[in-house]
Amino acid sequence: MLLHPKASIAVIFCARRTDEDEAGYQAAATAMGELAASQPGYLGQDHARSADGLGITVSYWQDDASAKAWRDHPDHARIRDEGRDHWYSEYSLHVARVERAYDWRK
Amino acid sequence: MLLHPKASIAVIFCARRTDEDEAGYQAAATAMGELAASQPGYLGQDHARSADGLGITVSYWQDDASAKAWRDHPDHARIRDEGRDHWYSEYSLHVARVERAYDWRK
Repeated sequence: MLLHPKASIAVIFCARRTDEDEAGYQAAATAMGELAASQPGYLGQDHARSADGLGITVSYWQDDASAKAWRDHPDHARIRDEGRDHWYSEYSLHVARVERAYDWRK
Repeated sequence: MLLHPKASIAVIFCARRTDEDEAGYQAAATAMGELAASQPGYLGQDHARSADGLGITVSYWQDDASAKAWRDHPDHARIRDEGRDHWYSEYSLHVARVERAYDWRK
């Protein structure tokens, strides 16, 4: 959980999982998380998933060009197709530009 | 899980729960979700929380004025103080303007 600067790009991915292939999904999620983290312009990501299968992943990027380059990465595109075939029943994706941010720690 | 228009505002709240007062937290989360949904400019929200206590709530607002009005709502401010006192060990909040969005359904 990091604080990201004004004008960085937040990619908000909200997805409902099928019951299918949890092991394959977990392996792909881990691999994609690591691959994303090695891309230029990557700032960080947060992920939560409820027991009912609804997951939210927010990845943050230095600028729109780096967010789009990750969208177009061939390994990412391939996994996205697998996601539609097997892992997800629905998803939404919002790309948004950070206007202000705060954090707090006890 | 709804698709929200370009220029709407996404408020991305990422929080780590303490182990304290799950019942109080749940009651407050439900009440705040309902109160948010009754505010002018509210478009919807998505929420996921992992077993390890990390939760992400993204609420969407028609414009920045409605997002700020919700931030400043007295009941919301009071619950935010309770959250810092009891329910959260840390959180981040990013306010971002939607630039593009997609969704997909099987």
